[in-house]
Amino acid sequence: MFETVAIQGERGSFSDAAARKLLGASVGILPCTTFDDMFAAVQSGRVAAAVVPIENSLAGSVLRSYELLGASHLEIIGETLLRISMNLIAMPGTAIGGIRKVMSHPVALAQCQRFLAEHDEFEAVATHDTAGSVKLVMDAGDRSVAAIAGVEAAETYSAEVLARDIQDHTENFTRFLLVTTPDAAAQRRSETNGAMKTTVLFNTPNKAGALFRALAAFALRDINLTKLESRPIAGKPWEYVFYADISGAASETNVANALNHLREMCDVVTVLGSYPAAT
Amino acid sequence: MFETVAIQGERGSFSDAAARKLLGASVGILPCTTFDDMFAAVQSGRVAAAVVPIENSLAGSVLRSYELLGASHLEIIGETLLRISMNLIAMPGTAIGGIRKVMSHPVALAQCQRFLAEHDEFEAVATHDTAGSVKLVMDAGDRSVAAIAGVEAAETYSAEVLARDIQDHTENFTRFLLVTTPDAAAQRRSETNGAMKTTVLFNTPNKAGALFRALAAFALRDINLTKLESRPIAGKPWEYVFYADISGAASETNVANALNHLREMCDVVTVLGSYPAAT
Repeated sequence: MFETVAIQGERGSFSDAAARKLLGASVGILPCTTFDDMFAAVQSGRVAAAVVPIENSLAGSVLRSYELLGASHLEIIGETLLRISMNLIAMPGTAIGGIRKVMSHPVALAQCQRFLAEHDEFEAVATHDTAGSVKLVMDAGDRSVAAIAGVEAAETYSAEVLARDIQDHTENFTRFLLVTTPDAAAQRRSETNGAMKTTVLFNTPNKAGALFRALAAFALRDINLTKLESRPIAGKPWEYVFYADISGAASETNVANALNHLREMCDVVTVLGSYPAAT
Repeated sequence: MFETVAIQGERGSFSDAAARKLLGASVGILPCTTFDDMFAAVQSGRVAAAVVPIENSLAGSVLRSYELLGASHLEIIGETLLRISMNLIAMPGTAIGGIRKVMSHPVALAQCQRFLAEHDEFEAVATHDTAGSVKLVMDAGDRSVAAIAGVEAAETYSAEVLARDIQDHTENFTRFLLVTTPDAAAQRRSETNGAMKTTVLFNTPNKAGALFRALAAFALRDINLTKLESRPIAGKPWEYVFYADISGAASETNVANALNHLREMCDVVTVLGSYPAAT
């Protein structure tokens, strides 16, 4: 369906693995340094879609992803859940005893606190992404440095896994969204089937009970709310927009009715996409 | 009331300014490197209280603060709102044209993107805090380096403000909480008066309409909800705890009734504190 997709981070990253899970092993990958670059690559037409981390079961929501989804005119057409396993990765033949520095994304470092506390001879250094840290270690050819990343990163850069599954919690999942232009989304929509999910952005008027009444639009129709995220509105201190994930597609009658009900109460109601729910 | 309070960051930081706003100019400050250190300083009895940033009107919630509030047995007894103004600060006599590197906290750098884009000769370097960056610049005595911080930091370290109010949005506020031990909170409670606010942590059962029914406990009693924040539960992927700020004190009858109503529906309902609402 898509020849090439943009990801934030390097080849071998968890985003790369999520892209292959969503679109098959042969999909082309455009690595981007920042989330902004990744969205811009789709909006400019350079690639057809992006695979965006939106939420980790331990670290919570990826706030920049929410902000860019709200500001862009891209549409969500799919999601997948990826189990995250962190590993200590270094040059082949590296001895753990000789390592002095460990590089990774700050969230990955935070998820391996117990392992790092057991090795207080390691200096932890924050970098832009997990797989990129493995690439840095291999490029430097330095056996005193290691990275924390997924096993895919070790495979991609021919590095060695020195310690497996070093994260504090084994139940560690990241949810990724597949986002594309409205045109590409419209073409793809007829292909989807199975249980659907919809992500909708709305604001609430600044008065008592406003959020309760907004959620009534869904609850009164037995539409399940699987996630609710609030984000501040720039320039309007202490006012928020909400991102809700609900069960069902926006084209289903009861969801369409709920969205019309929501529009009676809120100035802004934007459907960010309906897509097959990951299982 | 409190002789010394812990803050995250250095003297001259926004947290320092918030502590003085809450407790008077003469309050003693214990600078801590991390949020965890700051909470530990109160729990160990080293200081009586901490001043904790919880929410910025542009960047959103400070997630680590929420997590530590949920995990600690400390109580919220006050809040204040501080207007945030970012400034370019360097050694006295520094010329803007000679600056090559600008250091600050990543959130501060993100809030000055327009200014930094106009000066693409500046390399932006992320550090632990704003005021600490001014301290680093002064200690290094290097006129090619500047920091982004509040004017208080320039005063504290006898540095010079080269450019004022360089943040993208002028409407930029941070909300800080004053947290202390339950014993100290109980002593202080009799002193408070005026409009009160309560922060409560609750979970919801994993079924349709659960959050809607939980919020009904407040909405049906006309209790205003000023903030709702969701955070994942470690080890239970895609289940959340909620932090709600509501109007009124937990000792008021209708709030007490609402909390009892909430306890009928939720396994966990923890009052994190009732405190005078900032105006």
